[in-house]
Amino acid sequence: MINETHNPALRSWVASANAPGCDFPLQNLPFASFRRQGSQEAFRVGVAIGDQVLDLGAPGVAAALKCEPRVAAALAQPGLNALMALGHAVWSALRLALSRALREASPAQAALQAALLPQSQVEYSLPARIGDYTDFYTSIYHATNVGKQFRPDNPLLPNYKWVPIGYHGRSSSIVVSGQSFHRPKGQLMAPGAAAPVLGTSQRLDIELELGIFVGQGNTLGESIPMSEAEDHVFGLCLLNDWSARDIQAWEYQPLGPFLAKNFASTVSPWVVTLEALAPYRTAPFRPAEDPQPLPYLDTPQNRESGALDIQLEVLIQTAQMKKDGLSPHRLVQTSYRHAYWTLAQLVTHHTVNGCNLQPGDLLGSGTLSGPTLDQAGALMELSAGGKNPIALPNGETRTYLQDGDTVALRGHCSREGTARIGFGECAGTLLPAKST
Amino acid sequence: MINETHNPALRSWVASANAPGCDFPLQNLPFASFRRQGSQEAFRVGVAIGDQVLDLGAPGVAAALKCEPRVAAALAQPGLNALMALGHAVWSALRLALSRALREASPAQAALQAALLPQSQVEYSLPARIGDYTDFYTSIYHATNVGKQFRPDNPLLPNYKWVPIGYHGRSSSIVVSGQSFHRPKGQLMAPGAAAPVLGTSQRLDIELELGIFVGQGNTLGESIPMSEAEDHVFGLCLLNDWSARDIQAWEYQPLGPFLAKNFASTVSPWVVTLEALAPYRTAPFRPAEDPQPLPYLDTPQNRESGALDIQLEVLIQTAQMKKDGLSPHRLVQTSYRHAYWTLAQLVTHHTVNGCNLQPGDLLGSGTLSGPTLDQAGALMELSAGGKNPIALPNGETRTYLQDGDTVALRGHCSREGTARIGFGECAGTLLPAKST
Repeated sequence: MINETHNPALRSWVASANAPGCDFPLQNLPFASFRRQGSQEAFRVGVAIGDQVLDLGAPGVAAALKCEPRVAAALAQPGLNALMALGHAVWSALRLALSRALREASPAQAALQAALLPQSQVEYSLPARIGDYTDFYTSIYHATNVGKQFRPDNPLLPNYKWVPIGYHGRSSSIVVSGQSFHRPKGQLMAPGAAAPVLGTSQRLDIELELGIFVGQGNTLGESIPMSEAEDHVFGLCLLNDWSARDIQAWEYQPLGPFLAKNFASTVSPWVVTLEALAPYRTAPFRPAEDPQPLPYLDTPQNRESGALDIQLEVLIQTAQMKKDGLSPHRLVQTSYRHAYWTLAQLVTHHTVNGCNLQPGDLLGSGTLSGPTLDQAGALMELSAGGKNPIALPNGETRTYLQDGDTVALRGHCSREGTARIGFGECAGTLLPAKST
Repeated sequence: MINETHNPALRSWVASANAPGCDFPLQNLPFASFRRQGSQEAFRVGVAIGDQVLDLGAPGVAAALKCEPRVAAALAQPGLNALMALGHAVWSALRLALSRALREASPAQAALQAALLPQSQVEYSLPARIGDYTDFYTSIYHATNVGKQFRPDNPLLPNYKWVPIGYHGRSSSIVVSGQSFHRPKGQLMAPGAAAPVLGTSQRLDIELELGIFVGQGNTLGESIPMSEAEDHVFGLCLLNDWSARDIQAWEYQPLGPFLAKNFASTVSPWVVTLEALAPYRTAPFRPAEDPQPLPYLDTPQNRESGALDIQLEVLIQTAQMKKDGLSPHRLVQTSYRHAYWTLAQLVTHHTVNGCNLQPGDLLGSGTLSGPTLDQAGALMELSAGGKNPIALPNGETRTYLQDGDTVALRGHCSREGTARIGFGECAGTLLPAKST
């Protein structure tokens, strides 16, 4: 539902929020968990406005926003879980209060001014304590491209167009943007070899995904119908589900990926609320000749506007590019609108058996490859399984990642006459394998 | 290592602990999180002795045990996570202190007597807050039996004898023994049908497993070598990984089981420490003609005594049996010693890529089927995929579970001249599907 918080004519008294191309204008208002860089302060909830963070835990801020006591208490927590648990009506009211307080000529400016910190001077924790992380597989293009490599005779399995395929991932190794990780070791089985060896992954890949943070949960045994599914979604972030393809190929049957994925996954610090994304809703992609979703995954509203047109990019900056002062190079540009399953369908399917979601749980969209190969969200697709090196502008090439590569995901929504809604950045750097 | 705490000649001043066949003699001392039944008290750490619980959070108990302040603080927590995080040396010292304090003629008797509660008057929470739950697949018999049903042409995949296969499960839906759950709904694809339907699972199964609670964790990016793996294991419990086979068959490719498993998993309340199980160590099962483990999964100690001979049973009590006052019927008897991979191998493999384990994480052994079909830990094996109904003594039959069935897992170690170490019970009851 579009309301006054989306009005593109509104401007903020935080001047940087009004700059063209700013990811965080007054119409966005995403949330993060942050503290002053290098400090030992407790993390606390902040909202992005322009190039600043408004510290929602700072003295006087909750009062200036006229928050109920339970909301003020949630904002003083070290992550977003408590706010997420309060539910959709609270998030919406808080968004409206923030929008009004941060507008030009707001009487709240005096009270909030002291609670602003430049984003350049803060550091982030994970937005929330993630209890369970589920990764889905919502791009039919990715499923087909990858299927061709793992199962040439059988790329798209018969269940794909019926079941929003998902599996459980690892929560403990999810880190926030900006962290580095070591190239993982694992069992590698060379084609035609008699036995596997323990070695360092040589096929270290990215996966361009969106992360969906669950807000209010459901009781074990209860399902969430499609009509209520989106009320359980707090917001979205960027997610890079780093993947070791050689480890994956050997280990993944019959129970799915495990060590190929759980060494690191990176999320962006800012969680963009579903309400902020409302102007960018669109009809989901599903060819007319495909089977229509089973009734429990189908509503008129979902058919009309269940998808989101979020522009996504993958950028790479190699060690050499850093040394030479070259900017990151954009490898890929695509959109979330190509996903085969909508986020409401993911929530409803996940709970159809009574599985309980909890505030702060993270659902990954799966790799968001678009319809053409240059819109693919993983190097195994872009390089055709390592066969076709990707040329970078400085003369380097890549099939999979090399040590020292930094990969950044970016996302935004924009359209003429509508405020830009940005996601910021989700970056990580691959370090060499540990020598031990 | 066997020490004085294992001496079978020692008796407790808690008389019930000395009774033959008692699961919780002085040599066991398992831990749980408990409170008075029906109370609103905070849960706290307890240790089982005979038919009593010693409340380790009660006034004076930590002092009587001469606990360091950090240990006393951990014992006052609502679950075992803090104690688990303190590490192997602390657990071992606490076990010795408990063993001495609970022995006949201990001067601590007066201080501890008031902190005893009958087990019949308490209720349990999960032993620990489970961050991540990983389920393995360590019985080659189960893998082969199941493989025959899902992939008749290819039952045991080529990686099985090299990789301790595992995958991530759902933490949020793990419940403690004694809880009921509803028969789940999900997509079902009948053989030969043109499309799946949303329906109620008709193939609701059990999985007889052990759960392995991680104690001290490891830092993201660091691996745990085999020589240190067992120091990271706090203890073991019973685990029933309820499974909807019809949902599983349709959803599990290519990313593994998901909604077929995450509607409920049940653990026993008592966690038996690895130290208590030391007298029952044995050589792992691995035929000489099979490939030997890769060096990172192999140590002389593991080859000699990496396995545990834990006797396991599955009991069923149908609604009719309850009505007729009939005792539960034992369906299966087997042992954990038949597992193909040891718990040290699970810990080391899980972290070889740098994945971080955390205190309270749960590793499932996978279904512990023994070498013969009557030792199988799942109904899909016992009934040959539903083709051969299992006869119960009262004339009923079962292929999969029926509404109102209660299934209980039990486990114990025993040998002439060595104290019995019991696990208590892990029970759950299947309720009809919700009508909505």
